[in-house]
Amino acid sequence: MEKVTNVAPESVFLYNPDILNGLDWNAVKNKLSPFITNENPGEDYFLVRPLMIDDYDKGYLQLLSQLTVVGNVSKSDFETQFRKMKETGGYFVTVVEDIRHNKIIGSATLITELKFIHQSGLRGRLEDVVVNNTYRGKQLGKLVVLTVTLLAKKLGSYKMSLDCKDQLIPFYQSLGYNLEQGNSNSMMLRYESKL
Amino acid sequence: MEKVTNVAPESVFLYNPDILNGLDWNAVKNKLSPFITNENPGEDYFLVRPLMIDDYDKGYLQLLSQLTVVGNVSKSDFETQFRKMKETGGYFVTVVEDIRHNKIIGSATLITELKFIHQSGLRGRLEDVVVNNTYRGKQLGKLVVLTVTLLAKKLGSYKMSLDCKDQLIPFYQSLGYNLEQGNSNSMMLRYESKL
Repeated sequence: MEKVTNVAPESVFLYNPDILNGLDWNAVKNKLSPFITNENPGEDYFLVRPLMIDDYDKGYLQLLSQLTVVGNVSKSDFETQFRKMKETGGYFVTVVEDIRHNKIIGSATLITELKFIHQSGLRGRLEDVVVNNTYRGKQLGKLVVLTVTLLAKKLGSYKMSLDCKDQLIPFYQSLGYNLEQGNSNSMMLRYESKL
Repeated sequence: MEKVTNVAPESVFLYNPDILNGLDWNAVKNKLSPFITNENPGEDYFLVRPLMIDDYDKGYLQLLSQLTVVGNVSKSDFETQFRKMKETGGYFVTVVEDIRHNKIIGSATLITELKFIHQSGLRGRLEDVVVNNTYRGKQLGKLVVLTVTLLAKKLGSYKMSLDCKDQLIPFYQSLGYNLEQGNSNSMMLRYESKL
């Protein structure tokens, strides 16, 4: 992580980048070919790291807009939300940067939730997974999902869950996620849109 | 809420009980018969309120154990987790107490999540819904779910979601939740149990 910590003080990261070191990649080695990790992401111009407060200028929101509606979020709005997340804790937005172009090209978010059940346990949730269309074939989707999945494990989560569309089921199954029989329904209530 | 604030200072609540006042019950009036609300829960010995730090002694964890594994959580563990949730914010554990017996008989939790998408929006999640078996027929399940659903709306959430077993789908549909076609899958990865 030296190349990260040399260019930016820790305070500009959403979470401490050190916790991305030493994840248990051996546990998922068979899911990647060739084998890559967050510390060795396959190309020397890829960098996997926590979201940074200046990622507004590196196209993070444009990337998210490939996923869903982002709306009109100013740089100041972004920074305010970033600081709220950082203060709250439990938000592990993790990105891949193409450092040749100073551009965010992939992202996945781990949210941790404190529980009373499961011995006052910690639950992980996977949210907002997206990879830039033009970077297909680099396993970056697998890489960001496995990175935050292993991070949730390292933080002591008893489980990790996600909601997804039908066509993404095989992708997540290939990474170890299951549809549990009789218990795999995600239901939604949408309030009037603010947009 | 006078009867609440008279007996306990605000600091012992997980969240400010005042925000449960004036929820938009008109929007869901047709979902309850007879009509009840968190402020008028049908019996004068029912009290709907935020979780309190002494609810360990009122059987909150015994109630949760009707839902899933709770494990060995001491009073000190409970208080530690309660304080962490309170400090973090975004945890709206809401309970029904039978004040005749000083006993927690129902609960539902709203968790709010800060997003960058949807104009730096707020998302709600419904978790850990449980009602004591011996209090059936009082609409307490509907009451706790609708209370936190309306609370999420009041807090400005753009949507609220939940995961559930097959047999609970009709119940949640009756309260306004939907299985969205092609986008209603909840997937899970379980790490080794701590228990």
